[in-house]
Amino acid sequence: MAVTSRATPSRPSAARPVLGQNQYGKAETRVVRITRDGATHHIKDLNVSVSLSGDMNEVHYSGSNANVLPTDTTKNTVYAFAKEHGTESAEQFGIHLARHFVTSQPSIHRARIRIEEYAWDRIEHGAEGAHSFVRTGQETRLAQITYDGERWEVVAGLKDLTVMNSTNSEFWGYAKDRYTTLPEAYDRVLATEVSGRWRFGWADGEKPAPDWDESYEQVRKHLLQAFAETYSLSLQQTLYAMGARIIDHRPEIDEVRFSLPNKHHFLVDLEPFGLSNDTADSAVYFAADRPYGLIEATILREGCEERIPADLTNL
Amino acid sequence: MAVTSRATPSRPSAARPVLGQNQYGKAETRVVRITRDGATHHIKDLNVSVSLSGDMNEVHYSGSNANVLPTDTTKNTVYAFAKEHGTESAEQFGIHLARHFVTSQPSIHRARIRIEEYAWDRIEHGAEGAHSFVRTGQETRLAQITYDGERWEVVAGLKDLTVMNSTNSEFWGYAKDRYTTLPEAYDRVLATEVSGRWRFGWADGEKPAPDWDESYEQVRKHLLQAFAETYSLSLQQTLYAMGARIIDHRPEIDEVRFSLPNKHHFLVDLEPFGLSNDTADSAVYFAADRPYGLIEATILREGCEERIPADLTNL
Amino acid sequence: MAVTSRATPSRPSAARPVLGQNQYGKAETRVVRITRDGATHHIKDLNVSVSLSGDMNEVHYSGSNANVLPTDTTKNTVYAFAKEHGTESAEQFGIHLARHFVTSQPSIHRARIRIEEYAWDRIEHGAEGAHSFVRTGQETRLAQITYDGERWEVVAGLKDLTVMNSTNSEFWGYAKDRYTTLPEAYDRVLATEVSGRWRFGWADGEKPAPDWDESYEQVRKHLLQAFAETYSLSLQQTLYAMGARIIDHRPEIDEVRFSLPNKHHFLVDLEPFGLSNDTADSAVYFAADRPYGLIEATILREGCEERIPADLTNL
Amino acid sequence: MAVTSRATPSRPSAARPVLGQNQYGKAETRVVRITRDGATHHIKDLNVSVSLSGDMNEVHYSGSNANVLPTDTTKNTVYAFAKEHGTESAEQFGIHLARHFVTSQPSIHRARIRIEEYAWDRIEHGAEGAHSFVRTGQETRLAQITYDGERWEVVAGLKDLTVMNSTNSEFWGYAKDRYTTLPEAYDRVLATEVSGRWRFGWADGEKPAPDWDESYEQVRKHLLQAFAETYSLSLQQTLYAMGARIIDHRPEIDEVRFSLPNKHHFLVDLEPFGLSNDTADSAVYFAADRPYGLIEATILREGCEERIPADLTNL
Repeated sequence: MAVTSRATPSRPSAARPVLGQNQYGKAETRVVRITRDGATHHIKDLNVSVSLSGDMNEVHYSGSNANVLPTDTTKNTVYAFAKEHGTESAEQFGIHLARHFVTSQPSIHRARIRIEEYAWDRIEHGAEGAHSFVRTGQETRLAQITYDGERWEVVAGLKDLTVMNSTNSEFWGYAKDRYTTLPEAYDRVLATEVSGRWRFGWADGEKPAPDWDESYEQVRKHLLQAFAETYSLSLQQTLYAMGARIIDHRPEIDEVRFSLPNKHHFLVDLEPFGLSNDTADSAVYFAADRPYGLIEATILREGCEERIPADLTNL
Repeated sequence: MAVTSRATPSRPSAARPVLGQNQYGKAETRVVRITRDGATHHIKDLNVSVSLSGDMNEVHYSGSNANVLPTDTTKNTVYAFAKEHGTESAEQFGIHLARHFVTSQPSIHRARIRIEEYAWDRIEHGAEGAHSFVRTGQETRLAQITYDGERWEVVAGLKDLTVMNSTNSEFWGYAKDRYTTLPEAYDRVLATEVSGRWRFGWADGEKPAPDWDESYEQVRKHLLQAFAETYSLSLQQTLYAMGARIIDHRPEIDEVRFSLPNKHHFLVDLEPFGLSNDTADSAVYFAADRPYGLIEATILREGCEERIPADLTNL
Repeated sequence: MAVTSRATPSRPSAARPVLGQNQYGKAETRVVRITRDGATHHIKDLNVSVSLSGDMNEVHYSGSNANVLPTDTTKNTVYAFAKEHGTESAEQFGIHLARHFVTSQPSIHRARIRIEEYAWDRIEHGAEGAHSFVRTGQETRLAQITYDGERWEVVAGLKDLTVMNSTNSEFWGYAKDRYTTLPEAYDRVLATEVSGRWRFGWADGEKPAPDWDESYEQVRKHLLQAFAETYSLSLQQTLYAMGARIIDHRPEIDEVRFSLPNKHHFLVDLEPFGLSNDTADSAVYFAADRPYGLIEATILREGCEERIPADLTNL
Repeated sequence: MAVTSRATPSRPSAARPVLGQNQYGKAETRVVRITRDGATHHIKDLNVSVSLSGDMNEVHYSGSNANVLPTDTTKNTVYAFAKEHGTESAEQFGIHLARHFVTSQPSIHRARIRIEEYAWDRIEHGAEGAHSFVRTGQETRLAQITYDGERWEVVAGLKDLTVMNSTNSEFWGYAKDRYTTLPEAYDRVLATEVSGRWRFGWADGEKPAPDWDESYEQVRKHLLQAFAETYSLSLQQTLYAMGARIIDHRPEIDEVRFSLPNKHHFLVDLEPFGLSNDTADSAVYFAADRPYGLIEATILREGCEERIPADLTNL
């Protein structure tokens, strides 16, 4: 995202194409840490991707690896740090890793750590101990930590959280042209699979950091509640309400971006079979796959910069 | 599965290859039914696949569709029946559909309905009404209903339920040959993604049917508890314990089959970094993707037949 | 599939649920073998899954692993055999593996080896040597070898081969009921993603085996040609033509099964925009995802048994 | 990407969070166009995603849709334009669409069209006509067209093109720290799944446009040849060679970005089985899934700006 410290390429000869932004590292190191508190165990289940940038011209131009810490080493570091420093929160773990790479290797000027986290619930049962778990299967929690030796940027987020309002959604009064055939809707299903990212204002490592886990739980609660409580005239309005609720309630967050596919549920036409599919009592919908509306926007605290990229997902 | 009423092909000429088992229908009709009880709504979210068999020689041999009810019609029937008959349980809905196809079309001698069901929780919020939902994201519930005009076969199941015991699992005392290098393990992580199917004894439509939803909840609870409570010497032993618990507690079930991938969590060797990765306090694991052990077995009530096919998943 | 040698469970007590069919092994071992003929290299790229059955009651009932060759060992064996015996064809490689497990471990009575194979083309270029490749990306080739110590069963196949006829397909004259709304079609697109399996008659290891690679190439050619050359009145007719062509031309094959999703391409209604979407010159279609028709059937050489299971894919 | 015309939000009250970059439209409209030249047919198989931006404050702040052309209309437009304007190339089709949205709706200031294209080969057969096809299954071709009413930006690309050099790759001389355990390699397999994007210099709609299809074919050829012909000391060096080859040979391209996962093929240790796995004759590798190295970089024509975003894929 925005903490940029791009390598300045050595001036190439007129003929030589120029190296631009570049980054490398080991992606998707799957690290699981089990902590034992007697017979009560705790799981932290992470997928860690490291991206390093810096003085990397030679490895591209000539293949000299003198400045290149192997991606295999970044993988080893993830495992060793999980043991040495623990994985209290994904964000704190990423901060340890990013600081290490930038401060220990002179050629590395910037580190970005991306972490996916999978949540587990306990299985209720009648035996002794608390070391049996079932994956919640709901959203994947996301964290991205970037450090350039001076400033920090932390972005949290989630993906694959599917939500639905079965009423309190309308869509009408829109612009029409010769290709418009959509009838206006005064009571529709509104469903989406939330992909969101939110950036913390915290950037100075000398200042106290937010409580990352508490912040995540609160942001998640606010976005769900705003989705549920907003009487929607458009998915854009709902999206803005979700982001604004977070900005209003969580002072540690400066910027929120959502990418919300409109998971269309079309009322089935049952008239050919002599049936009315009105929604008064019970209604039957076709849940469509493709195409789907895709609504994306950033909501900012006043005076803050936009740094989260426009495309959270690449089609 | 086992209710077979295969078409007897008309005797082909010596030269003509013979038509064997065949089935057709519309797969993956995504039907969502919203029921309104004032401001409190209820969701049923199903993915329905219809497979029909019968007197279908001509459509294969000559392309005559006279005996073929179009797959488009089976899709329409799913929607119309969801409105007319409701979707109280996936099993009951499948029974309505299967009976309809077999009894209304002379050429159709057997119908099999497969249903995936996705569960939703309510979003807690401060506004009025109860019509906001979040998908649980955990297992997909499965139902398969087969009817040949005389007997019923109902198989329920689930897939994608990921579970882990972080201790109480060993693996040693196994057979060894010249290709064996695996060290014995006395305290390992045991994790799997449960895929299971269980067959009901109910087959006679004149007899009262089980309470399908209650049965599902109880089977799910028993398999999770058996997983958690079994001190495991092998994944086979755990699998058997899960199936046996169901047979012992649920008289409506005659047969259970599980397909359990061993989702390996390998203890990372941290000695090169001067760290001990013993499990006493906290341990760090690599969660591997492929290859994986795959353990599959059927557990039967004594005297009952095996009818669930050996391969629940096709690699 | 059909070479069955199910373990006979020791008689359990009245109360004890009975162990039925069971199998285990390491799934999805990804082995790539590079052979060098000077500067010309050859790739064999396989995904191998081993399933073993036999005298396995105790591991399920009591957790004793005395009869269990670890799945880790089956993985090691795959790698060692790829070096020792080569991977000339997937089928021949599977035969080596299956024979080894059944003949070397007294507790193992049956071995089934499933192999996926990915094809690579050479990259044309101007440098010396022939060791640069691009994956074809088309169908995945399949092989399944089963051995019970006496008889062999070899099934070959493919999946994910997407084909289309843009004309020469009709669908009319079908059965109609009150839920039928589909208009008859006299010129439609017919597209499917072929999943097929074909069983060899070869079962006696003393007899000479077929040329597996030549057979695969010929079967693939025949099924594609039959798809292209059949003027289709139904997808069932096309399916039968594909299977019959194989049975007619390839004496080594006794049985073929296809699972053919009807990948619907719906003519878009452009009349609201004042456009005619007739097919005379150019026509525009919507390629739908779900639901889809699913047509499945077996075609047999006269006098041969059906052994390929009805469901190649599990929805 | 870089043609930005972000909406200027109306000044919110002090309390109100600010709307930032936003875009909306219908994603993944699957349009297939069949053109008939007598009995010879031609397929164009596209997946089109529309993203529109402009004067969209009110729909977010108040839910007024007065400025919102429905996403359903953008879908209809895709189908109608495929009929009216044809789909000669994905790029030209996208230019028609983008110009239409920006010039016909006052509230829309910027349109971005993303297109995936799937290639089909003809099936060789003995019947008349040429209307039978098989999907190549290799890479997906990509195009992205952005227009803000003044300037055009066209980015082409591809994804899912898997390539391998089975020799002529080394990796040594890298930086080492206390977490480095990787042995140096003097003859390794180098495999990757190419994801690439390249930006055209063309931006002025009055100037003649490149031959989009010829350009794609040539860029694809050059990147494959550069991959094959480069004796590699690092994947970064190979990546640079691929990009530089394109810049050097294709004057219409100003910027290239690649995201190259290092698809590791690890030589299997066969010594425990008394086998040597040296590469002189034939060698056996384990093809790993995760983690994987991920190498990403931009290569520019001298004097040109970087506009392709750093992250082509979102982990």
